[in-house]
Amino acid sequence: MALTDISYPTDVSMNTDLYELTMAQGLWESGRLEEQGCFTVFFREAPFGSAFAVMCGTAELGEFVENFRYTDEDIEYLAELDAPGGGRLFKPAFLEFLSSFKPRVDIDAIAEGELVFAREPMVRVSGPMLDCQLLETALLNIVGFQTLVATKTARVVQAAAGRPVAEFGLRRAQGPDGGVAVARASYVAGAASTSNILAGRRYGIPVSGTHAHSWVLSFPTELEAFRAFAASSPKNCTLLVDTYDVREGVQNAITVAKEMEVAGERLAGIRIDSGDLARLSAYARTRFDEEGLGYVKIVVSNDLDEHTIASLLSQGAPIDAFGVGTKLATCYEQPALGCVYKLAARRSSTSAPWTPVMKFSEQPFKRTIPGVQGVRRYFGKNGGPACDMLYDEAYLAGEGAARGTTLVAVNDAALVMDVSALEARELLEPVVRTGCAVAPREDIEVARARCAAALGALDPEYKRFLHPQAYTVGMERGLAAVRDRLVQERMPAAPPVPHR
Amino acid sequence: MALTDISYPTDVSMNTDLYELTMAQGLWESGRLEEQGCFTVFFREAPFGSAFAVMCGTAELGEFVENFRYTDEDIEYLAELDAPGGGRLFKPAFLEFLSSFKPRVDIDAIAEGELVFAREPMVRVSGPMLDCQLLETALLNIVGFQTLVATKTARVVQAAAGRPVAEFGLRRAQGPDGGVAVARASYVAGAASTSNILAGRRYGIPVSGTHAHSWVLSFPTELEAFRAFAASSPKNCTLLVDTYDVREGVQNAITVAKEMEVAGERLAGIRIDSGDLARLSAYARTRFDEEGLGYVKIVVSNDLDEHTIASLLSQGAPIDAFGVGTKLATCYEQPALGCVYKLAARRSSTSAPWTPVMKFSEQPFKRTIPGVQGVRRYFGKNGGPACDMLYDEAYLAGEGAARGTTLVAVNDAALVMDVSALEARELLEPVVRTGCAVAPREDIEVARARCAAALGALDPEYKRFLHPQAYTVGMERGLAAVRDRLVQERMPAAPPVPHR
Repeated sequence: MALTDISYPTDVSMNTDLYELTMAQGLWESGRLEEQGCFTVFFREAPFGSAFAVMCGTAELGEFVENFRYTDEDIEYLAELDAPGGGRLFKPAFLEFLSSFKPRVDIDAIAEGELVFAREPMVRVSGPMLDCQLLETALLNIVGFQTLVATKTARVVQAAAGRPVAEFGLRRAQGPDGGVAVARASYVAGAASTSNILAGRRYGIPVSGTHAHSWVLSFPTELEAFRAFAASSPKNCTLLVDTYDVREGVQNAITVAKEMEVAGERLAGIRIDSGDLARLSAYARTRFDEEGLGYVKIVVSNDLDEHTIASLLSQGAPIDAFGVGTKLATCYEQPALGCVYKLAARRSSTSAPWTPVMKFSEQPFKRTIPGVQGVRRYFGKNGGPACDMLYDEAYLAGEGAARGTTLVAVNDAALVMDVSALEARELLEPVVRTGCAVAPREDIEVARARCAAALGALDPEYKRFLHPQAYTVGMERGLAAVRDRLVQERMPAAPPVPHR
Repeated sequence: MALTDISYPTDVSMNTDLYELTMAQGLWESGRLEEQGCFTVFFREAPFGSAFAVMCGTAELGEFVENFRYTDEDIEYLAELDAPGGGRLFKPAFLEFLSSFKPRVDIDAIAEGELVFAREPMVRVSGPMLDCQLLETALLNIVGFQTLVATKTARVVQAAAGRPVAEFGLRRAQGPDGGVAVARASYVAGAASTSNILAGRRYGIPVSGTHAHSWVLSFPTELEAFRAFAASSPKNCTLLVDTYDVREGVQNAITVAKEMEVAGERLAGIRIDSGDLARLSAYARTRFDEEGLGYVKIVVSNDLDEHTIASLLSQGAPIDAFGVGTKLATCYEQPALGCVYKLAARRSSTSAPWTPVMKFSEQPFKRTIPGVQGVRRYFGKNGGPACDMLYDEAYLAGEGAARGTTLVAVNDAALVMDVSALEARELLEPVVRTGCAVAPREDIEVARARCAAALGALDPEYKRFLHPQAYTVGMERGLAAVRDRLVQERMPAAPPVPHR
């Protein structure tokens, strides 16, 4: 089994936006090859109305960076690109530089399966500005989508309340690699299995499946179809009972279940894929129980998400397992996390001091947090996370203060807290140093266990679907002061740009 | 340039659901290797409230089928899978069969860029049931997502009313191959360019880009950043003016534009990525015009979709081009088309007659159309499409009727039309015969031209965003009668499954 495959294609360097290369050429041309940048990846709001997200994608970053190369074919393509105003877009000497380029960055990231909150650095990339820039697009793609899917899955699994959730969204996924990423991230966040055998082969994720309506339609009668499936897959027999009519389907499944008993086998379950799943599952459960077939499990599917699952279970529907496809695989409710990759500090060389920088934008919501950010998680007496605090490593080092303990909330400067009494843990862990992964890829089971533990320790108030408690993410007071200073310096003259 | 690359990974055979293989084993085991199926791919409702969709993905089907192979590594993986009830899931002799498997199917499909409507066969796959089954998941993934993106793009391009639309959603795409599929499908449907250089290299799509906020932040001042970018990219210089404040940004861009003029160059444009784009674009246009820089284009971006673009232009915003990312790349409003792959006819061998089959389900909405379906488009006097009619090739052949001309609407049996006076054209074209592509991959420019022509010929009533006119898709009267007969035969006894 090839556990070292990544869900990312081999063309990692080309899976990017043109402007990364245009900017790289600009840096190269002006001789700014040693100019250092520190970028952070973050999202501005947790998805799906959730208070939190589940970090995912971290385990792929090492191999992503190590495999980042421009091939001869790539260079040849880039050499042929025309600039809109005339001439070639890229200079031959720059392409020569690119052809031997290897990113020399350091990457620190929150571990896979860990909880992550809005505005905090999920990933921090530092090193030569040019190198950092070239990684942006693919890195956002890897981390953003997998974190989105892991978060959605955590919600679906929570709603299922201990019943297994099978991910089977590949056919509706946004591209084939999207399907692999879905299977991977959903397993980290607690799905029991995937239908995707490529993901199964790559990551060792358990695979599962039943049969399609076409199986039933390919026989003259449903009963013949069920008998044939039971004969072929006696140890993996879950029958889809809604091709024609669930009452008939359940009756045919009962017939086959009894025939299987005679042959020393057991029908594993039935699946219902349409109609009122609360009503039909209750009907099926009653019928199987009446026939002494209490062991037959009832599996349901059909555009399920956390809200439908919670509703079914609150109605007492006797469902044993859920198959979840489209709404998980595409994160239907909100198909993008909106991760961004923003420059937070720069310096002219590795020996110069860091200068914190901040993007203002025309929307206050889009203003960034400056500095070489670290993030620390503080825990309450029950062991659950209480709040997170961003700090500026460079600033704290400069001040000689080993640790600031006054937190100023990112979204409300009036919320100030003393965190000195709380236990704390650093969240960013080294992943890449000077372009090399610091460790082999982490086993997906480790990430899955970390996720289960993190979700288990989180207070229920943060996990409810309707109006969850907001989790406090703050800045260490010194960092907040730096941000305030930058804001004062950039304060524009009122009034704003007038309306016409 | 490698124009023959496909947006699909090499693992085409493994990018599938486990149950396809379980069913294949069932067919193999029962010796039904010559059993023939005819499957159709369709969607039940057009996305985004649109009356139509834009077919996309067809050009990749030939290579998909020709590259469909199980490798030794695949077989080894499958051999190790355990059945839930004990033992191995797959029998060694079946895996031996798989290891030399090549699909022997025929595929007919609607050409790329053509309009397609709900319920009609976008793709028809016929051949050995087993072979058809194994293609299902990947085929749905290819055609479903690209058709969704092409449809979304057609709407965005329509809203932009002749102004170029640049696709730059890769960073928010659902996986890297998702990003390539987005670039490909959006170019077919009228986007002017993509930011994605991998898609540019594979398909020869024009690539475009500006620079990021980080470029500005990496310099002490915005003016220095603009000057450096103009020096490095004088023939491709569009300046992002909202890193700090658009008024300052525009002023700095004016300064640089005048310096460029002295050097014999021209500033191509500016980009605004935040704030009120109507107000800010008007402000920028006024300022550039006041300074005699009427040639500087105004590009905007920031979570745009067809509705925001239409609103901006209805306000008279002087915008020259749009950059569209997240909402196009993820089809944010509806991230899945919901394509299905349903068995519509079967026969015991190639010499036996076809038997039409129909899935009933517990939801009438999910009932399928039976038969070896063809689909014909009828055109009105203005040259635009008037209605589409599905017919059963096998039925018509049997009846000796070359062509039925009475249409019964799929969703309303009371809507009956005589189409004998209309010009008609067959929509399904041969793509694969006995597992081999009938022609080399079509040039993407051909599909793009076909799409532009099809959209141009479509009456505006079908294209408006609010309450578009519904397009009539019907069944040829003989096919409708076959469906009626199947419904009568399967009529369940009332009442339905009772509530508890």
